[in-house]
Amino acid sequence: MTFDAINFNEKLAKFNDHWSPRVIAEMNDYQFKLAKVEGAFIWHQHDDTDEVFIVINGTLNIEFRDGKVTLNAGEMYVVPKGVEHKPIANNECHIMLVEPRGVINTGESHTGENNTGESHTGENNTGESHTRESDTGQSRNKLTAKNDVWI
Amino acid sequence: MTFDAINFNEKLAKFNDHWSPRVIAEMNDYQFKLAKVEGAFIWHQHDDTDEVFIVINGTLNIEFRDGKVTLNAGEMYVVPKGVEHKPIANNECHIMLVEPRGVINTGESHTGENNTGESHTGENNTGESHTRESDTGQSRNKLTAKNDVWI
Repeated sequence: MTFDAINFNEKLAKFNDHWSPRVIAEMNDYQFKLAKVEGAFIWHQHDDTDEVFIVINGTLNIEFRDGKVTLNAGEMYVVPKGVEHKPIANNECHIMLVEPRGVINTGESHTGENNTGESHTGENNTGESHTRESDTGQSRNKLTAKNDVWI
Repeated sequence: MTFDAINFNEKLAKFNDHWSPRVIAEMNDYQFKLAKVEGAFIWHQHDDTDEVFIVINGTLNIEFRDGKVTLNAGEMYVVPKGVEHKPIANNECHIMLVEPRGVINTGESHTGENNTGESHTGENNTGESHTRESDTGQSRNKLTAKNDVWI
């Protein structure tokens, strides 16, 4: 029997939206996700986990409050848990993320940048590309991607 | 402050031996390791964890008792825990492994192929490229790499 490899570029061809990670593999309770990104994301942090960024195609900058790192294809970085970061891609960039199952892409939203206004989904949790953490009551903005979407 | 990316090819240039993974990054209690491989490894399994193989350069075949998978550059596969596998590279291949800290590359050695004779290191644990698990008393052969070596 021949098993199928998981091919990054084949998976990347299956979607085009930005800042919306797709799961391509799981090991133990960790997920490998691909994302297409362009422009500036929001400041956020993950209080309970480190986060791995691997660049597949293009260039990604990750800003920190005390500096930044630039990642090109074939490079990776581990953002330590609790460290605020803001990913920025001047041109479209394809990345792989590694993080525990269940991590929300916009993190804990402590900066407030993603906690205002018109993009809220209200009390329900059925939006196609939005979500809301009922345990915190904290609304997420339009950059909060639906979690655990496989391709 | 500018932080340094982890560049796969720069790290790969730092060593040449085969089947001897080097750690390049850690996230939570997981490690990202690079390895150069060529030829056939041994049948082995990891009873407590899945194992991720990502091919950076070249082609890797992984044989299973019931089939095989072929991975080229830009492809990955997750070997489920407990599944016997035998990596084979017809030509030198560069791979990234992701697995929990502390995993031994030759696994649980249940097949016996790596439990014989002249390559044992004896009772001590000081060999440059060998090791021995004192808790099991099970000797490893020359393919058992020193663990947790960072580059």
